[in-house]
Amino acid sequence: MESIIYQPAASMLVIGDEILSGRTQDTNSNFLALALTKKGINLSEIRIVPDKKSQIIYAVNELRHKYDYVFTSGGIGPTHDDITADSIAEAFSVGIKVREDAKKLLASNYANGEKDLNSSRLRMARIPEGAHLIENKISKAPGFYLSNVYVMAGVPVIFQAMTDWIIPQLSHGKPTISTTIRIDRPEGEIAKSLKIIAQDYKEVSIGSYPFNEKGLLGTNVVVRHYDKDLLFRVKSAILSSL
Amino acid sequence: MESIIYQPAASMLVIGDEILSGRTQDTNSNFLALALTKKGINLSEIRIVPDKKSQIIYAVNELRHKYDYVFTSGGIGPTHDDITADSIAEAFSVGIKVREDAKKLLASNYANGEKDLNSSRLRMARIPEGAHLIENKISKAPGFYLSNVYVMAGVPVIFQAMTDWIIPQLSHGKPTISTTIRIDRPEGEIAKSLKIIAQDYKEVSIGSYPFNEKGLLGTNVVVRHYDKDLLFRVKSAILSSL
Repeated sequence: MESIIYQPAASMLVIGDEILSGRTQDTNSNFLALALTKKGINLSEIRIVPDKKSQIIYAVNELRHKYDYVFTSGGIGPTHDDITADSIAEAFSVGIKVREDAKKLLASNYANGEKDLNSSRLRMARIPEGAHLIENKISKAPGFYLSNVYVMAGVPVIFQAMTDWIIPQLSHGKPTISTTIRIDRPEGEIAKSLKIIAQDYKEVSIGSYPFNEKGLLGTNVVVRHYDKDLLFRVKSAILSSL
Repeated sequence: MESIIYQPAASMLVIGDEILSGRTQDTNSNFLALALTKKGINLSEIRIVPDKKSQIIYAVNELRHKYDYVFTSGGIGPTHDDITADSIAEAFSVGIKVREDAKKLLASNYANGEKDLNSSRLRMARIPEGAHLIENKISKAPGFYLSNVYVMAGVPVIFQAMTDWIIPQLSHGKPTISTTIRIDRPEGEIAKSLKIIAQDYKEVSIGSYPFNEKGLLGTNVVVRHYDKDLLFRVKSAILSSL
């Protein structure tokens, strides 16, 4: 059996009442999941919490100690319910204030530059001590990262731009690749064979997902590993076992 | 100021590698969020973890002590990667075995009844000690609940049927209602007024969500509370402040 090539473990923290009330369907975590999988970083947990300081701080502190990376989305705009930056500062017990480089970036988004930066907008230039900025090519207001915590906007198009900017800078392992085997038989009929193969290839992730296509019950078997040859050996084993 | 009418606090635990790899976009938590909001139960946290016993057990035990309700989705099928029922039994330190009532329900889904129940399918009749069944009108294999933890299928159509069955049985508070105020001005211009109103009405949740409609920057302000009259007083206050 080959040794596993280390993939860093990541977590995502989605911040926003609008997701928990059901008003908005979160799509940022799916975008991040795909990007991390492609990169060779293992997304191990997602949490969604409300715009509530105590819950944000608790989650950030738990996740940043547990995982190599934490990515957050939401709560870095100019309004009273945007409390992510303050919560991160509190989680790390560091100060937070308006920073000149962030202010300049922010100003570049407005017709009259710094003159348009009222006190609400200036909140978006408040950056926890010791953090580095994350580029926002859409609306300029930067995200930031502090240690292993990457703080990004909730608006999907901005979240995506920030993710695309940060991902190339991260340490990563060998990317996981996957192959899907469509089997036109219900899960209950193939489960026994699958179980044996899963036991034979413990290092490979074998997932089983039932489908119902106009009454035809079938199973998509998804095999995941970084080693393409091994992947295809497992695929052959599954196909010949049925 | 009126006293708050108690809404129980709920959490959701989504179980599945396929969500964390990005292969599948989770929609079950959005369905649950809308149903709970309508009922008067406050969804306070969502977690998504992989098909890994240790992570499921850790999350279930943390969430069930923290919240009035835990709803799980995923991992109760017939294959080797379906480990939710066993994980729940372990989290509660109780036994798990095939139960006759669950077996009968299961058998009713197959042409030859119990004769079609091979060992893999029988796994779906394994229920932790002390649990009650949750009806599955789609494919019969039941979910279950044990104390305050409600265990449901991951396939959306089944998850939804189970949710629809269980929700009417839950204690709940006064449902939160919400109103959205569309303002054709960017967040940064209205943030100051909003902040003052949010301070005046601390018991009301006021969320601010920017939009960009073909270059027109605007803000949807979402006001949420159970008291309709209060909601409309806040709405008026917001509109007259601008």
